[in-house]
Amino acid sequence: MGEEVIISNKQVILKHYVSGYPKESDMELKNSTIKLNIPEGSNVVILKNLYLSCDPYMRGRMKKTEGSYIDSFTPGSPITGFGVAKVLESGDSNFQKGDLVWGMTGWEEYSIVTPTDQNYLFKINDKDVPLSYYTGILGMPGMTAYVGFYEICSPKKGETVFVSAASGAVGQLVGQFAKMLDCYVVGSAGSKEKVDLLKNKFGFDEAFNYKEEQDLDAALKRYFPDGIDIYFENVGGKMLDAVLLNMKLHGRIAACGMISQYNLEQTEGVHNLFYLISKRIRMEGFVIFDYFHLYSKYLEMIIPKIKAGNVVYVEDVVEGLENAPTALVGLFSGRNIGKQVVMVSPE
Amino acid sequence: MGEEVIISNKQVILKHYVSGYPKESDMELKNSTIKLNIPEGSNVVILKNLYLSCDPYMRGRMKKTEGSYIDSFTPGSPITGFGVAKVLESGDSNFQKGDLVWGMTGWEEYSIVTPTDQNYLFKINDKDVPLSYYTGILGMPGMTAYVGFYEICSPKKGETVFVSAASGAVGQLVGQFAKMLDCYVVGSAGSKEKVDLLKNKFGFDEAFNYKEEQDLDAALKRYFPDGIDIYFENVGGKMLDAVLLNMKLHGRIAACGMISQYNLEQTEGVHNLFYLISKRIRMEGFVIFDYFHLYSKYLEMIIPKIKAGNVVYVEDVVEGLENAPTALVGLFSGRNIGKQVVMVSPE
Ligand SMILES: NC(=O)c1ccc[n+]([C@@H]2O[C@H](COP(=O)([O-])OP(=O)(O)OC[C@H]3O[C@@H](n4cnc5c(N)ncnc54)[C@H](OP(=O)(O)O)[C@@H]3O)[C@@H](O)[C@H]2O)c1
Ligand SMILES: NC(=O)c1ccc[n+]([C@@H]2O[C@H](COP(=O)([O-])OP(=O)(O)OC[C@H]3O[C@@H](n4cnc5c(N)ncnc54)[C@H](OP(=O)(O)O)[C@@H]3O)[C@@H](O)[C@H]2O)c1
Repeated sequence: MGEEVIISNKQVILKHYVSGYPKESDMELKNSTIKLNIPEGSNVVILKNLYLSCDPYMRGRMKKTEGSYIDSFTPGSPITGFGVAKVLESGDSNFQKGDLVWGMTGWEEYSIVTPTDQNYLFKINDKDVPLSYYTGILGMPGMTAYVGFYEICSPKKGETVFVSAASGAVGQLVGQFAKMLDCYVVGSAGSKEKVDLLKNKFGFDEAFNYKEEQDLDAALKRYFPDGIDIYFENVGGKMLDAVLLNMKLHGRIAACGMISQYNLEQTEGVHNLFYLISKRIRMEGFVIFDYFHLYSKYLEMIIPKIKAGNVVYVEDVVEGLENAPTALVGLFSGRNIGKQVVMVSPE
Repeated sequence: MGEEVIISNKQVILKHYVSGYPKESDMELKNSTIKLNIPEGSNVVILKNLYLSCDPYMRGRMKKTEGSYIDSFTPGSPITGFGVAKVLESGDSNFQKGDLVWGMTGWEEYSIVTPTDQNYLFKINDKDVPLSYYTGILGMPGMTAYVGFYEICSPKKGETVFVSAASGAVGQLVGQFAKMLDCYVVGSAGSKEKVDLLKNKFGFDEAFNYKEEQDLDAALKRYFPDGIDIYFENVGGKMLDAVLLNMKLHGRIAACGMISQYNLEQTEGVHNLFYLISKRIRMEGFVIFDYFHLYSKYLEMIIPKIKAGNVVYVEDVVEGLENAPTALVGLFSGRNIGKQVVMVSPE
């Protein structure tokens, strides 16, 4: 047993449960310390965090929830989330000192995690890609786009596809997957810059800024005169209502997220659900945590495409743990352009 | 070619398009005449109508709609709908004089119809059951319960099932089908008499009067402490919102109808759709017109069960075409107990 090593450990703490829009001041930076030794017989892994992922689902963890698919954060403790890290010490034979991993970690410089099935700690084998990709295209959001599109949408070649929050971590990939199937793909996003990205970088056939549309129904009719076969739902609320008016018979809606509702005390009502019946629509929700058994299959598909340049991925990387709260909060105003990542340390 | 025969023909006319709740005064009785001869070379069939079916979807046909799954009625003309009839004359070799048939006919004593794939005219082969059953358990509502439950709900033995508008034409069968699969089945309906019927006649495990519940969420929690696997949705609106709170993970919702919304100028908003995601729910709409290829398979299953008394069916039969408007309008206040039928003539 080596000497005891205690070092300083900056952390992002959730101060209290949040209601309404989250603010930077709901979190605080704290200087803590951490012991870098593993007690005899323990199976924990000590991680140096490199990249942290800002994801919309984290908003749900900022409030007290019961029976949700994921626990609330603990006020007074560091936020947790997906990240990329280096193994400093390991009590688990599946991980060796020096390994790069991604999975659930803490919003701090160093974390002690216990690898379990629930904790999602994956060893990173392919390092010929930017490491930060394991928070995005090669991590949870990538899997979400893959499963949501291929497993939930039942897509067929040439169908018409609409994606909301289309320039984000998930949406940009959904659009590219749909183009690979020769679908006609339209995306919505919240700024001109994002709309340009959709059309010029990700290959969407069309894109529009939903904030500039007085009438979402009219906007959708403009781009889908014959209707929508597949809606990849990321935002909910008014957009869902407008989409329901424009679905084709036997259309499918993958209910992935409803970010426009996450910060509302009273969610908006959706009025057009009768169209699910008259248009024979299947609307299906999914949570990516159920599908990680498909991860290696996904990597086999996606890594060659990344390397060949057939799939591109845009990230918005903020440097420094101290900027993590701003980055996280920014998801809910659309501040991020592409996948929001926080670089804690480059290696 | 025989002598020309012209006889009187009472009809129920839709006076104008309807908004809000339909009223008897939106329809009127008219004395018309009809020629009972078929012109040389015509393939029409002349029917004597025996039983007419009152169905909630007919509300949608009372307003001007575009691109709906079914055409609007024509103001000034007789209402049309499913019914049981006797063939008086036939220009179609599939039907002979004297045949009993069911399908789309007019709200009048005699109708001239052109059998096409869209018109659904089925020859009645089994006459050992009440003829009126071909408007209900052996007709469109029966098929709806069968397809909605077996094809859309993906039911498994022992699951928990909730049915709204449970004592109606469709609901009473859904409950009985679910019991055959050893499911735990609860129904909601709008009166004590209907609740008793659900428990004592149709074998539902539990039933409640939704009009007497202050809090639908609490009512559902009372009957489903561990949640609902399958919701057979007939009513929409507030009930759907309460159900979403009480679904189990991986639950299924067959979106069959939303009768509580049909007469509203502005539909109620549904607020709890995020649960589709967090609970991984599939909600799927269907229209029975897509499934009539399964009709003979359904008859093979259901007729022996009717004859053996393993399935029961409650009808609410009103006598006389002149009472048809009251019967139709009554669907929207829950006046009917069981399947609403109008007997125009016993044979
Ligand atoms: N089911 C699952 O397992 C699963 C997994 C991952 C993600 N998700 C969901 O997928 C969706 C996208 O996630 P992501 O990681 O790709 O996030 P993201 O799109 O990278 O970031 C969030 C984006 O949402 C948009 N947005 C924020 N508020 C909005 C509003 N009120 N109305 C419309 N758009 C709004 C913003 O873009 P604009 O500038 O375009 O407004 C923002 O950039 C989210 O709903 C998330 O919860 C679900
Ligand atoms: N998708 C399809 O192809 C298809 C085919 C057939 C039927 N359907 C739908 O299935 C549902 C049931 O049809 P059905 O033929 O079996 O009708 P039904 O249940 O025999 O008659 C309608 C019943 O709906 C209930 N109701 C009326 N207004 C209501 C309200 N505001 N809130 C709650 N319940 C209300 C009443 O019962 P209470 O006393 O219980 O309130 C009434 O007796 C309808 O929504 C219909 O449109 C769909």
